[in-house]
Amino acid sequence: MQHIRVRDPAGSVRRGTHSGGTVSFGDRQYNIDAVDVLPPCEPSKIVCVGRNYADHAAERDESVPDRPLLFLKPPNTVAAPDSTVRLPADKERIEWEAELAVVIDEQCRHVDADEAMDVVRGYTCLNDLSNRDDQSREQNWVRGKAFDNAAPLGPVVATPDEVPDDATIELRVNGDQQQAASIDRFVFSVPELIAEVTAYMTLEPGDVISTGTPAGVGPLADGDHVEIEIEGIGTLEHDVTIPDA
Amino acid sequence: MQHIRVRDPAGSVRRGTHSGGTVSFGDRQYNIDAVDVLPPCEPSKIVCVGRNYADHAAERDESVPDRPLLFLKPPNTVAAPDSTVRLPADKERIEWEAELAVVIDEQCRHVDADEAMDVVRGYTCLNDLSNRDDQSREQNWVRGKAFDNAAPLGPVVATPDEVPDDATIELRVNGDQQQAASIDRFVFSVPELIAEVTAYMTLEPGDVISTGTPAGVGPLADGDHVEIEIEGIGTLEHDVTIPDA
Repeated sequence: MQHIRVRDPAGSVRRGTHSGGTVSFGDRQYNIDAVDVLPPCEPSKIVCVGRNYADHAAERDESVPDRPLLFLKPPNTVAAPDSTVRLPADKERIEWEAELAVVIDEQCRHVDADEAMDVVRGYTCLNDLSNRDDQSREQNWVRGKAFDNAAPLGPVVATPDEVPDDATIELRVNGDQQQAASIDRFVFSVPELIAEVTAYMTLEPGDVISTGTPAGVGPLADGDHVEIEIEGIGTLEHDVTIPDA
Repeated sequence: MQHIRVRDPAGSVRRGTHSGGTVSFGDRQYNIDAVDVLPPCEPSKIVCVGRNYADHAAERDESVPDRPLLFLKPPNTVAAPDSTVRLPADKERIEWEAELAVVIDEQCRHVDADEAMDVVRGYTCLNDLSNRDDQSREQNWVRGKAFDNAAPLGPVVATPDEVPDDATIELRVNGDQQQAASIDRFVFSVPELIAEVTAYMTLEPGDVISTGTPAGVGPLADGDHVEIEIEGIGTLEHDVTIPDA
């Protein structure tokens, strides 16, 4: 099943399901083109994982960590599917990072890895937009990772049964493939990540753990069109605008 | 004026004002002992500042940064006044850090320092609880700073006119003074911090910027009683429990 969150033609926010271009909630159905697709959840926090594909760590000349490298994206980072994402002005290098995002279904703490899938609503696509100018200069990646719109998210939350264990994840910029990998290349698995994060913090329904990006990151330019496609989920698309300083 | 948030005797959450031990909302008044004092705001994010008093940077053998050192505490960190704060088990060193916290009053972005006080609701006390075991081992201070209950907050939000520019900030553990300073010793002022943070992210009503801690941090033990007193605001008190692993 694919969960979706939309603004309907009357302007009301609705949570429903998506199948084959049709959005359903209650006894109503809409063509997906007749509604505004919203981010599929409203996280109180996004816990991101760095260097969770060995090939991406290597391209940044970094080692694979001995435990998950965690960082945070607060709610101001969430951007909607099909939006034009306005990035910070005056930066040399803001990069894309295609990621599989895990959406949490229930409040949880101290979850064992072997029971972790019980707290998962499903998976969606996330672009972990990264401002390298500042990231390289700060201890905690706040200016680097927590700026407004730094986490385009969506378009749907696909239940885990819809997403193969070796699902492909692919990112295209202006139609050109830049990242392509399988999620079976994770250093730390989804259950391991949930166990590690909930050892320290309570997760709430709609919270997100983003699982890191594979090799192939690169810089965005004003006017770029980004697509992140994950097998079983679909495609998150957004445009990019970079204002003059 | 002092803003306060309480659960009244009927169990309803109320936002009102506090003066001399009396809580008022609408035409009702309660003695403060008759209500449960809640955290005075519900931040979607807490943006914390490290090394913002030169003496604390020195005690940790660190230099004063050339721009604010930022890190994040998500909503799971907020703990109520007068609560018993349960800390992570099995850590050698979890330390107190008394801080003046700035509470934001309106949604804002790109605020100039000279207009920054217009977006401030007021000030409260925050204990930036810090798990040094993990903080020393991680790039981003997530396990170190974002664990559940890592930000006791309150008891009231005092409007800026109530808090002198050289207000004293003091922390006592089991009655013994451990930190004592004046907020006129900030490296970066409140308006400078607001300008810097809002250059990157939108702040929401109730969001918090915490301004860093002075010298005198130290480790907490199971059963400790902590008081943070700031002139013009009052005293945030909480107990500490550290479970067996």
